[in-house]
Amino acid sequence: MSDNLPLLVFGAHPDDIEFGCGGVVARESRLGCPVHMVVCSRGEAGSVGTPEIRSTECLSAASILGASLDFVELDGDARLRSSAAHAITLAGAIRRIRPGVVISPSVVENQHPDHAQLGRLVRDAARLARFGGVAELSELAPHSISSLFYYALSLEAEPRDICPILYDVSSDLALWVAAMEAHSSQVRAKPYVELQLTRARSRGLSAGIGHAIALFPADPIVVDRLESVATGARCF
Amino acid sequence: MSDNLPLLVFGAHPDDIEFGCGGVVARESRLGCPVHMVVCSRGEAGSVGTPEIRSTECLSAASILGASLDFVELDGDARLRSSAAHAITLAGAIRRIRPGVVISPSVVENQHPDHAQLGRLVRDAARLARFGGVAELSELAPHSISSLFYYALSLEAEPRDICPILYDVSSDLALWVAAMEAHSSQVRAKPYVELQLTRARSRGLSAGIGHAIALFPADPIVVDRLESVATGARCF
Amino acid sequence: MSDNLPLLVFGAHPDDIEFGCGGVVARESRLGCPVHMVVCSRGEAGSVGTPEIRSTECLSAASILGASLDFVELDGDARLRSSAAHAITLAGAIRRIRPGVVISPSVVENQHPDHAQLGRLVRDAARLARFGGVAELSELAPHSISSLFYYALSLEAEPRDICPILYDVSSDLALWVAAMEAHSSQVRAKPYVELQLTRARSRGLSAGIGHAIALFPADPIVVDRLESVATGARCF
Amino acid sequence: MSDNLPLLVFGAHPDDIEFGCGGVVARESRLGCPVHMVVCSRGEAGSVGTPEIRSTECLSAASILGASLDFVELDGDARLRSSAAHAITLAGAIRRIRPGVVISPSVVENQHPDHAQLGRLVRDAARLARFGGVAELSELAPHSISSLFYYALSLEAEPRDICPILYDVSSDLALWVAAMEAHSSQVRAKPYVELQLTRARSRGLSAGIGHAIALFPADPIVVDRLESVATGARCF
Amino acid sequence: MSDNLPLLVFGAHPDDIEFGCGGVVARESRLGCPVHMVVCSRGEAGSVGTPEIRSTECLSAASILGASLDFVELDGDARLRSSAAHAITLAGAIRRIRPGVVISPSVVENQHPDHAQLGRLVRDAARLARFGGVAELSELAPHSISSLFYYALSLEAEPRDICPILYDVSSDLALWVAAMEAHSSQVRAKPYVELQLTRARSRGLSAGIGHAIALFPADPIVVDRLESVATGARCF
Amino acid sequence: MSDNLPLLVFGAHPDDIEFGCGGVVARESRLGCPVHMVVCSRGEAGSVGTPEIRSTECLSAASILGASLDFVELDGDARLRSSAAHAITLAGAIRRIRPGVVISPSVVENQHPDHAQLGRLVRDAARLARFGGVAELSELAPHSISSLFYYALSLEAEPRDICPILYDVSSDLALWVAAMEAHSSQVRAKPYVELQLTRARSRGLSAGIGHAIALFPADPIVVDRLESVATGARCF
Repeated sequence: MSDNLPLLVFGAHPDDIEFGCGGVVARESRLGCPVHMVVCSRGEAGSVGTPEIRSTECLSAASILGASLDFVELDGDARLRSSAAHAITLAGAIRRIRPGVVISPSVVENQHPDHAQLGRLVRDAARLARFGGVAELSELAPHSISSLFYYALSLEAEPRDICPILYDVSSDLALWVAAMEAHSSQVRAKPYVELQLTRARSRGLSAGIGHAIALFPADPIVVDRLESVATGARCF
Repeated sequence: MSDNLPLLVFGAHPDDIEFGCGGVVARESRLGCPVHMVVCSRGEAGSVGTPEIRSTECLSAASILGASLDFVELDGDARLRSSAAHAITLAGAIRRIRPGVVISPSVVENQHPDHAQLGRLVRDAARLARFGGVAELSELAPHSISSLFYYALSLEAEPRDICPILYDVSSDLALWVAAMEAHSSQVRAKPYVELQLTRARSRGLSAGIGHAIALFPADPIVVDRLESVATGARCF
Repeated sequence: MSDNLPLLVFGAHPDDIEFGCGGVVARESRLGCPVHMVVCSRGEAGSVGTPEIRSTECLSAASILGASLDFVELDGDARLRSSAAHAITLAGAIRRIRPGVVISPSVVENQHPDHAQLGRLVRDAARLARFGGVAELSELAPHSISSLFYYALSLEAEPRDICPILYDVSSDLALWVAAMEAHSSQVRAKPYVELQLTRARSRGLSAGIGHAIALFPADPIVVDRLESVATGARCF
Repeated sequence: MSDNLPLLVFGAHPDDIEFGCGGVVARESRLGCPVHMVVCSRGEAGSVGTPEIRSTECLSAASILGASLDFVELDGDARLRSSAAHAITLAGAIRRIRPGVVISPSVVENQHPDHAQLGRLVRDAARLARFGGVAELSELAPHSISSLFYYALSLEAEPRDICPILYDVSSDLALWVAAMEAHSSQVRAKPYVELQLTRARSRGLSAGIGHAIALFPADPIVVDRLESVATGARCF
Repeated sequence: MSDNLPLLVFGAHPDDIEFGCGGVVARESRLGCPVHMVVCSRGEAGSVGTPEIRSTECLSAASILGASLDFVELDGDARLRSSAAHAITLAGAIRRIRPGVVISPSVVENQHPDHAQLGRLVRDAARLARFGGVAELSELAPHSISSLFYYALSLEAEPRDICPILYDVSSDLALWVAAMEAHSSQVRAKPYVELQLTRARSRGLSAGIGHAIALFPADPIVVDRLESVATGARCF
Repeated sequence: MSDNLPLLVFGAHPDDIEFGCGGVVARESRLGCPVHMVVCSRGEAGSVGTPEIRSTECLSAASILGASLDFVELDGDARLRSSAAHAITLAGAIRRIRPGVVISPSVVENQHPDHAQLGRLVRDAARLARFGGVAELSELAPHSISSLFYYALSLEAEPRDICPILYDVSSDLALWVAAMEAHSSQVRAKPYVELQLTRARSRGLSAGIGHAIALFPADPIVVDRLESVATGARCF
């Protein structure tokens, strides 16, 4: 990160990244970090919105967030299953983008099945990306990411056994909301924006700030001074 | 922390801080942060070492670590019980020192009973310190700490439901070892130094560094950019 | 409950019940269930509000909620510790009121220390209330409650290992808000009302309703048909 | 449920439903709720009983329980693996039957592998059933179930992080036992009936009733009065 | 244990040991291990039975089990609270008896409050017993126990995060039942015997044996060959 | 085990068994137990070492450990996915070798993806091995193993909800180290040997012995006297 390595964020559907951690993307991008979004379906199994409409909405949202966007076709919406082939495909994306931090949906189950499947795939891919002997990836140099975080699309999707990192998005709220509302086919159908803002405000209140998005580190965080982790959420 | 607020570390016995997180103390101190150690017994129930010897050893260790040291008499070694009066006493210490970060033994049970009792006391004290209406503390202005971390004196004392922060102490290892060995009455009796170095090396290996001490945040950590938490321990 | 047994709710401070589960109290009361509130301090350690002001606010809130109110003096605000004597005192309250359901603060720690202490006390008291040989209680007939639920004053105080019951308070929201705002000394100091409404709205959204308060059953719930538990929160 | 929506119960093998929650099926059916059983293999990998015998036994048991029965062929006994295609197949069953409550084996692993696989499949299927854009299901109107419960075929299969709902089957015990014994090829081989009755009696004792079957809600339960959840199991 | 060190079992009430792990006591005693029971109240808060009756019943039960029995007066029935003084008292008992294995009630809460309090006290006492500097114990040589196990008086009291050791009591069932029934004032009042036999049979069935009692090791078990732990409970 | 049934250990890669539990294998073999190792890839996706080199290294290591070795080809290194066909293949291996104890990598995720996949496969295979009706296995008599243990290749791979069995390998340390170092292509690349010895020494210190390897029982252990489980790790 010190070398301004890109941030790479994965989503299973065209709106997952925006709803789950759009504020983080907006802020990192504005802070000068190159951000890449990889979306693994066109949302074609959803109740509203055609694949074309949803792809266009996603491009608009990415543009608002200042992030690049790629679609990777895996099994299709509501059909995603973790497989070695998919993990290798995503490892290829990681080797091409060579990110520092990677963010993926959490592996918590009992939500949209694609989310946990993608979380597992990304977790596997982040390891495969550094293994030197994966034949399909031989033309891309191995790459070790610096860390993996999970985002959650609902309270229920938050891992209960990982203490979250609360990311303050207060100063980038307008961008986040705009990116969520770019998915107009979806936000007309269900109160997704309110769901996310309510969660972020709830977290922000406990941290004594405006709005915060919870990220869940997959591995212990390594520091060499307390200063970087010196603020805790303990207002109540 | 940005204002260089002091670091305050609590120990139940004269050697707990050194064994549990002495490397953190050494490094923070060397980085320029004022560090205060509060020790809550003279170790008088231990199998070896008199209270006088142990107090002297503790002063030597604090000197090596570059930290100030105060003894607070509570119930005595092996007799510590969380009580409102003790919590108020420790809240007074917090109000006087006005730390940013506070570090205490973990609240995990099934170890030396004093450790978890003190962990609970410190946790309570950190709240009482900010409540305006505690009569005994009326002469000390309320103070809100920025965060609370737990250290563990053994693998078994590590909270299993908190993902640790690994603090790299590699460049301060000699100071840490010296501080532990200052407790010569103890290190002659049991392989405490090896226990801690083995744990720290095990953590360091998984982080790809030398030695690391695991700290466990009591509350979610708040950040406003990923850079501060961008390194994860994921070497294997 | 079928016999309209009273509901008994415990709070450690004058505003805990209102903030933590005031909507439940409002609704049960309006549905015709006699509701008793037992408050175990005058909030004298708080940063704002005198004991007199806070007692008056609490009476107003209870009146808004349609509940009776008793103060029980235990150790005082910020000093509460679970003890056998206190458990017997609260068991006496249970024997006098003879409730069906009892609601207390959760036993989750790392929040205001009084909350978890009271949660443990109530849990113990609910057992003592039915033991026939407790000498101090010999003039009050033993009583077995039908169930015990916990409420949480913040997201962090919610037990992570109990799946909550979401209680729909949508049609009683105005009463709940009024009861919270009756604690005017407190709500001027911190965004307590917003904290609770944000949490309740977040839960309500996941249940497809307006606002919901999470209650956590201490024991398995017993039913004799699925109809009573047939609605789950699964909107996302 | 208020509209008497059917109950839909899934089993991986011909006897799973009867052993795991047959008493619930018997009682709901007797209370007037239409109950449908969907069984996903013929038990052909078992040590005793041919597929034909086991299918016949299952039909007898369903008849005793007053439930309809369908076999859905997936991968076969001991070969079941969660896949998108299977989830869509089961979502189709859900759309056809349009249940309120759905009951499936728990997702706890380290038991017969088919059980957890089916639990995951049903959990996914219950979401796919309400997504409007799943091509294979386009001829069946989307359907949202009201709730999902898990049953466990052994103590070890009970989810440890969900507080169970204990369903009182005392008045329907004879029907339940008859349905289990209808699987005569199996009950001759192993003490399955005793295993289930022992578990149910153990749960019943803690609830102060006769026999109870533990069901585990996949999502928080939503209520609008305490009366429906007012009885807790707290006899000891 | 290889030197036939005594087994020491603690109970909070006159019947706890018998109901919770009487079969283990019976068998160890019959195998030639000296067994000591320490009971910490006379059961005077119970609904039935006077302290005199209950003491007599307990002596009869101990005699049946072939164990010695001591009463230690702490706070009295339903009033037990962990304190340093009590821990030292019990550490004294440990130093006198010098056991290999110690068994105590589990520290799981939400049961009779005395049980978890005693569990904590014994856990602390087992450490204090080996600390050389505890003044009150200076006339008794320090002693390190070999291991600590917890027993549970109900399914709900079983620690959920410890995989149990199942102790086969099938060949000593009659002795166990006789010891439980020696508490005739209690077994007339509630189906305690059935509760325990049901639990033990349920465990036995999953292990393919008759009846088994679950013990929960407080610490990792150390072995030097697999043979001693080579049988697992995996019948279903 | 009493009949000296073989020990069967599974590894996903040529060095997993040696690094994860080589000391156990060495000691059991030396104690006279026939040990079989089944390795499920040639390590062809690793960064260093060809499949040929790694196979040769594995044979050398097995020879040092006194164990027989078979390679089973499944999906290949970094591609392993649990499937019914693979589970049946491994069940066949179990039926042929007819072991008492089986040891496999843990099912904890967020490590090399093959490890958890193999752990699940072995867990399933151990059940399929005893089901009489699996067509592909009809020529091999069903076999019930006596128990299943997991090993972990790193601290992070240790199951957090199972209390480990610590296996004392102190007297077989040289053999273990030799077997690890036989994988010379690997140990030159990363400090694998130090990682494992550090972990084993850390466990050994807490048990008061030299080095210990943690094994995690998949099921409750069944004993009929305390002697076999009478030593606990409780030195600190």
